[in-house]
This record gives sequence, C-alpha cells and structure tokens, in this order.
Amino acid sequence: MIYVYTGNGKGKTTAAIGQIIRAAGKNFKICLIQLFKDKKFYSEQKILQKLKNIDFYAFAPKHPFCFPKINHETVKKQCEDAINFVETILTKKKYDLVVLEEFNIAIRDEFICVKKLIDLLEQVSPKMHVIITGRGACKELIDKADLVTEMKEIKHPFKKGIRAIKGIEF
Amino acid sequence: MIYVYTGNGKGKTTAAIGQIIRAAGKNFKICLIQLFKDKKFYSEQKILQKLKNIDFYAFAPKHPFCFPKINHETVKKQCEDAINFVETILTKKKYDLVVLEEFNIAIRDEFICVKKLIDLLEQVSPKMHVIITGRGACKELIDKADLVTEMKEIKHPFKKGIRAIKGIEF
Repeated sequence: MIYVYTGNGKGKTTAAIGQIIRAAGKNFKICLIQLFKDKKFYSEQKILQKLKNIDFYAFAPKHPFCFPKINHETVKKQCEDAINFVETILTKKKYDLVVLEEFNIAIRDEFICVKKLIDLLEQVSPKMHVIITGRGACKELIDKADLVTEMKEIKHPFKKGIRAIKGIEF
Repeated sequence: MIYVYTGNGKGKTTAAIGQIIRAAGKNFKICLIQLFKDKKFYSEQKILQKLKNIDFYAFAPKHPFCFPKINHETVKKQCEDAINFVETILTKKKYDLVVLEEFNIAIRDEFICVKKLIDLLEQVSPKMHVIITGRGACKELIDKADLVTEMKEIKHPFKKGIRAIKGIEF
C-alpha cells in the first residue's frame, strides 16, 4: 500500500511520525529514510531512536533552498544514492513500513526521476506500507498511490511573522 | 498557540501523535484528552504510555455514529465532563502541550458548545500549545486558531472497499 502526504500545510512529517508510532505499537518493522534533514535538529529523534524495530537513514542533508551555495549535481548524486538504497530496502522486503521523507520534493526538484521511484513501488506488496511525504507530489505518484492526503494550509503563524518553535516545528 | 487539524482525509490524529512525539523529545509536559475513542483499541497507545511527561484522559468513548443505541444526552453529559476537565487543565497551566482529540466532532454534533471552548482558549498563553483535531472544524474555532491545516482526502483505499489495517488505521 502506497500513501502520499503532500500539500503546503503543517502536518505531513508529523503524520508520518504518528504513523510510525502507531505501527511500532503493532510491532511493525520500520525504516525511515530522510532527505534534506539534519536528523539531530529534530526533537522527535530523541524519542524515535529509543524505540525498537526502527532503522533510520538520511541522505542529502542540505537542500539548495536552505543552502544556496550547495552544488545541484552534488545533491542529485546524494539523492541517487538514496533511491538506490530504497531499491535495496524494498527488494529485501525486511520492513513492514518504509517512510520516504521529503521524496516528493526530490522528485519536484528533479533530483530523483519519478519513473525510477514508481518502478520500485511496483514491488511493494499489499502487506507492505510505504509513506512518501513532501509538498508538491507529482501526478504520476498520486495516480500510483492507494491513499493521498493533501495537508492544505488554511492558516499558519509564520505568515504573521511568528518564528518556528522548538518542540513544535522541529 | 492554538492549532486545528481538520478535514476528511487521513492524518489528523497521526499528526497530533507525531506532534506529541516531537514535543516529548523537547521534554514538553503533555496532556492528551480523547473523545469517542477506546484507547486500548489504538496501537500507538502501547508506545505513548511508555513515555514520560504524557498524561492521558478519555471521555465519551462511544459516539452515536458507531453506537446508534447510545443516548444523545448521555454523550452530551460525558462531553460536558470533558470540557470541564479541559477547563481545570488549562487553568492549572501545568502542561506545555494539550491535545484535544476529536473535539471538532463534539462541537459539530452539539455535544460541546463552541463558545465554552473558545472562552477557555482565551486563557492559553503564547508559550502553551493546544491542538484540536477532528473533521468539520467550525468557523469560530478556525478564526480563533493560529494554525489550521485541512487534511483533504484526495484518495482513500476505503473507497475501494479495502478494510482498516491494524498498525496503520488504528
């Protein structure tokens, strides 16, 4: 089963974390693969790393939007490493839940070819669950998914100039 | 700060759980107050109950939608007990994060008066965070909130006749 959490509103990553916690309560084996995130930065890591049955991997920690000096080709190579790793993970069928954090962004920004990811998702059995997060999910992935939720921003305090709060936003 | 997660798509409760995990990683004191849920039913409880700094309370475990024989006045009384409890919680200012699960439903179905909840939310300081979940959030609550995300269903496997999966949906 393929799940896509997209849209411009808050709740995509937290919904994926909540889903990990629910799955962990059912003793699912879980793999979280993150792009564009320094995992030490995020408060939830302190809790997640204490849980059994969860493996973490991170690729391409710096996105050019936040780090304009970073070379596009460097990020593309890192994302290719990530998608090759996803291939290994999905082929081994070791996990019940695989979370691909911000992979929608990597496809949108052409760091990853959507066809490559969709070919890999063909291998996902109905008993295996793959969540893909990030704004700007492409049509091909939405067509392929079994469940798609658009987290739509109705209101956000950033627009009033309120800064990100540790424990809430990261 | 007041956060509302609403809409007909999957991700409202899981986003609230994810937010709890992030806040717990920052050592926030957290209170989760649930309506219309048998907490033993949900896989995430096994993980949440092991964490420090989280208190759980549940009121009105049976909603008439799922239990048609239950008396409307009984549920209304249980929800009134819940909102009185929320008043105590918010007045004491003991928690950094308070999650009011499915309170949007209770307002929509007239088990709780929205004015009563909004009066209570007036007491929430900028350093305290209150998340309200459930589909059908009313305009008054959306106006009061600092952040609102609509979890909009684009696709859901239930529509194809696929049943809820333990570890994913509950």
